Amino acid sequence: MIQIIPVPGLPEIQPGDDIASLITKCLHDQTCTIIHGDIFVIAQKIVSKAEGRIADLHEVIPSRRATEWAADWNKDPRIIELVLRESKSILRMERGIIISETQHGFVCANAGVDASNTAENAAVLLPEDPDESARALQLKLQESFAVPLGIIISDTFGRAWREGLVNVALGVSGLPALIDYRGQRDGEGKLLNATVIACADELASAAELVMGKADRVPVVIVRGFRSDAPPGNAHDLIRPAERDLFRS
Amino acid sequence: MIQIIPVPGLPEIQPGDDIASLITKCLHDQTCTIIHGDIFVIAQKIVSKAEGRIADLHEVIPSRRATEWAADWNKDPRIIELVLRESKSILRMERGIIISETQHGFVCANAGVDASNTAENAAVLLPEDPDESARALQLKLQESFAVPLGIIISDTFGRAWREGLVNVALGVSGLPALIDYRGQRDGEGKLLNATVIACADELASAAELVMGKADRVPVVIVRGFRSDAPPGNAHDLIRPAERDLFRS
Repeated sequence: MIQIIPVPGLPEIQPGDDIASLITKCLHDQTCTIIHGDIFVIAQKIVSKAEGRIADLHEVIPSRRATEWAADWNKDPRIIELVLRESKSILRMERGIIISETQHGFVCANAGVDASNTAENAAVLLPEDPDESARALQLKLQESFAVPLGIIISDTFGRAWREGLVNVALGVSGLPALIDYRGQRDGEGKLLNATVIACADELASAAELVMGKADRVPVVIVRGFRSDAPPGNAHDLIRPAERDLFRS
Repeated sequence: MIQIIPVPGLPEIQPGDDIASLITKCLHDQTCTIIHGDIFVIAQKIVSKAEGRIADLHEVIPSRRATEWAADWNKDPRIIELVLRESKSILRMERGIIISETQHGFVCANAGVDASNTAENAAVLLPEDPDESARALQLKLQESFAVPLGIIISDTFGRAWREGLVNVALGVSGLPALIDYRGQRDGEGKLLNATVIACADELASAAELVMGKADRVPVVIVRGFRSDAPPGNAHDLIRPAERDLFRS
């Protein structure tokens, strides 16, 4: 059995905050025991805030491209400018929607730039290296709790072809991102065909079920997940452009 | 807290089997109590098998298109023929991969046709109407357990841009498929922007974490999920082609 345990009570995160210490304090206050193999799923937004990945919109000078597009679609040109700066390439820029590849290689809307859940005239950007952020949090939280732990830094992404957002993994440390069943046999003894499961994305999605968009539960513990697959990171989840049928 | 509880011990499903009765018996044998609001996530494959959605490959006569493409990519032409028959439109057909829109409107690889985990010379097709399959299972299981229940019929789908498969909802009954947070305010009082969460897909993904591809746990109970959103079905999760930026 797997348990998905929300961690309420975290304070509003400010630039420079030590999230691992705040989580540790929060769990100690609630006398919540952490056990071997627990996975912390942490919303990207608080990681970005702690890392100071907040843009002051007063300081953003939009390019002509950003200004024109923002005017066409009734958007804030400074936000569009940030989206363009955070993008390595644009997949779609139409009907007021920008789907782009971030500098990390993630394909998502608005390059992950988010103006909700922040102060006015500020926008939160994705962490510069979410796998590294996850690794740093893993080391600190393991030191606090003295057991091996996994970390996922998550964000909600839209998908092609399906409505609604789902939570996915942007940073992973201490657990597999993918589980490769190829070479294993099914119940009938037939070889399993092309079956690689994105378990880190599924874990992120599971955690979102208790996060609640407006409820502010940015940290969730997933307990009881077991896999023999080797640990990986979120970079494993990015399909290289040359193997992707939906880039152009 | 949410619990994800695997239901082991189900027999191999045959055409005509009453899955609801078999699940009920299985849970009674294990003296497992079912409670108000439990969600059963049921693998598509056993629903398809029970509904007789199994093609005998001996009876499939491949078209010229299927034969030629199968020869080019070293595939079974009878499987390719089934994929083409199950497809309403083809999005990509290259490098040995077929991404198509099924008759239901799902976009996935091979139109959901699966030759693994079945007898030789057989392939399992998706249920004809997975929302209706979910509704029928909901009514039967509610009668068995005398509490309101939710049902998700799930399958693992690949995604654009990200590696690995994740479990998604093909059929939904008795719970919301989407949760619409638009109009709600975040912690700072700002309106939440375009936030609709595909909770049924996240619930399916959560369940997959204890299914284990080679382990044959086709039924999972998700306990403790709460939402005020109105119940929906999996059809809500299909983005209409005219609103989709990645169809052509």
